[in-house]
Amino acid sequence: MSVDLQRFRDDITRPDDKFLKAAEARQLLLTKPTGALGRLEQLSTWIAATQGQCPPRSLDRARVVIFAGDHGVAASGVSAYPPEVTAQMVLNFLAGGAAVNALARTAGATVRVVDMSVASDIPGVPDEVTKYKVRRGSGNIAVEDALTREEAEQAFAAGVAIADEEVDAGADLLIPGDMGIGNTTPAAALIGLLASRDAAAVTGRGTGIDDDVWMRKAAAVRDAMRRGRSVRADQIALLATVGGADFAAMTGFLLQAAVRKTPVILDGVVSGACAMLAHRVAYRCAKWWQAGHRSVEPAHEYVLARLQLEPLLDYQLRLGEGTGALLALPIVRAAQATLTEMATFDEAGVSDRPKDIVVDQVVVEDVAVEDALDEASE
Amino acid sequence: MSVDLQRFRDDITRPDDKFLKAAEARQLLLTKPTGALGRLEQLSTWIAATQGQCPPRSLDRARVVIFAGDHGVAASGVSAYPPEVTAQMVLNFLAGGAAVNALARTAGATVRVVDMSVASDIPGVPDEVTKYKVRRGSGNIAVEDALTREEAEQAFAAGVAIADEEVDAGADLLIPGDMGIGNTTPAAALIGLLASRDAAAVTGRGTGIDDDVWMRKAAAVRDAMRRGRSVRADQIALLATVGGADFAAMTGFLLQAAVRKTPVILDGVVSGACAMLAHRVAYRCAKWWQAGHRSVEPAHEYVLARLQLEPLLDYQLRLGEGTGALLALPIVRAAQATLTEMATFDEAGVSDRPKDIVVDQVVVEDVAVEDALDEASE
Repeated sequence: MSVDLQRFRDDITRPDDKFLKAAEARQLLLTKPTGALGRLEQLSTWIAATQGQCPPRSLDRARVVIFAGDHGVAASGVSAYPPEVTAQMVLNFLAGGAAVNALARTAGATVRVVDMSVASDIPGVPDEVTKYKVRRGSGNIAVEDALTREEAEQAFAAGVAIADEEVDAGADLLIPGDMGIGNTTPAAALIGLLASRDAAAVTGRGTGIDDDVWMRKAAAVRDAMRRGRSVRADQIALLATVGGADFAAMTGFLLQAAVRKTPVILDGVVSGACAMLAHRVAYRCAKWWQAGHRSVEPAHEYVLARLQLEPLLDYQLRLGEGTGALLALPIVRAAQATLTEMATFDEAGVSDRPKDIVVDQVVVEDVAVEDALDEASE
Repeated sequence: MSVDLQRFRDDITRPDDKFLKAAEARQLLLTKPTGALGRLEQLSTWIAATQGQCPPRSLDRARVVIFAGDHGVAASGVSAYPPEVTAQMVLNFLAGGAAVNALARTAGATVRVVDMSVASDIPGVPDEVTKYKVRRGSGNIAVEDALTREEAEQAFAAGVAIADEEVDAGADLLIPGDMGIGNTTPAAALIGLLASRDAAAVTGRGTGIDDDVWMRKAAAVRDAMRRGRSVRADQIALLATVGGADFAAMTGFLLQAAVRKTPVILDGVVSGACAMLAHRVAYRCAKWWQAGHRSVEPAHEYVLARLQLEPLLDYQLRLGEGTGALLALPIVRAAQATLTEMATFDEAGVSDRPKDIVVDQVVVEDVAVEDALDEASE
């Protein structure tokens, strides 16, 4: 198998500008002052453009796909949690007990978990979870490649297939989630390489590490970046060298979601790293995305700057799983609801603003701005 | 009738600290890194404290109450829209076509409209809407009192009664909404007086006014503030002098909601002005509130600073109706869901972080922070 990245450059178009313009025109007719819904209005026009439909449909089939994988670099002591937590959390997702499950239930979304490269074989999980598994744990990127090129291509193709499966099954909005002890280390290395920042600038506290662990992690990121520098221009090689099977799959997933014209809410630094990679492959894909939140991971800032995305929320989250994106989902839905469901001035018999303001009775003389500014209240 | 404000000082307590602590302790047991849900965790512990219950119940009965009223100051040409829009919008709310309706449907909340002082008698609206109506339009605060003291007390008492009705009917979270052409003018005057800011600093663009209209509005705010200065310490007199029946009712509503230990999400500058007044009456009431959003109205900043509230969202809204609060409602619900529904480490069989990090294999030597900082990636 060989992945053809050129296909994505050709197949990914921008959301349809015609429906963006139609949505902007409709916003002017709705029973509210012009522009009074602020950023919600921009969000609503983006939804119309991604759907190629105005007014847009409600987003009833939001789907989270969690890409789970272990990272050999965890053995370098870069995390506050032991590596076996990855497999345990996959079971927690399946049992519905994780943060992503609680948030998905309250937001009306559903969750799928895919084991791409968990270190152990988790007993009793359904085939849907494991069918794309590439290997047990990705290599320790500080000292060795995460994957062979063949494994990277296989994982990338799995992500493409998963996006197709989800869109074919009716998903109208996709959220990439991540789970993997140690996964902010490859995320930092990838972002450091793609944003040309040094290891210390992109290394964060992950699950909540102390200074000693942070130093080990920064060293691992530095070593991984040294190893990855020569393959910076080859996205598949980069995923093999300093990424992992979960990262490769998520990158393919994001690209194919854009091919399938499906809007995506990105989560934190892991999906951000994959988004930057996907953006290198086909820059138009970023037009299909919103940034769900601003992560506390320092590398995330470089992702947002490069992709020119303004996060929908800033709640100091650092959990992954897709939680930051899910938290923002109701806001995206609210934007759609206002554009689609609100009455127009005509429909509601509400008077629109006149072209010129009619002053019934001028009880105060016009005052200069300076006059008002000079007026102290006390 | 005479309103006894002292009663609120006596009856309003803080949310229960015992359940705040219990919720903080529970957060530490949930299957996620400590603190990884960021601000959502603080929000979740606040909900537990307001309910006096940990884990907290889901917030299934959120209720918006829109206080509608006209303002004589609209005749001074302070708005971009004609005054008849207030009555038209009341009908739009009842028909379900306004922004607040669309947002309430998507967030799973319900909406009640109360005509406190709409300038006309709106034909065909149910008694529930009009039963508390105090007068047709409040006076033009630039030149006359908005209300008599008796009317202010009557409206305030109506707000208290409405809060009782809603809590008795099962509301578990309340949102004050506003509708009234010209209502950001009394809001600005009240906030200017309570925050000791001059008219120009608190006068905003409202529904979207141009420079000429802004100057007229700033002059009206200045004149109202002159008129209100001598009664600053008497909240009922202040509502009568520079407020309006809608403001008086909303202030009573907010105070009684706190008496009834019911959490509130505040909206923008109108509910902010009432919140500042209520806070003067009984400062503990602010502990029952979240600020739904940061309004673009400049006076709102002084409200947030005084009440020490950090807005849940910043979406550049300037609509009122309760829309900013409704947009934030799913976030409050999400916070509750995580605290209540997530599995603990024990329940899920997930390994918690060890007290000391165990490093299986030290593949990189410890490096000093300086070393990592010196390391350039390119």
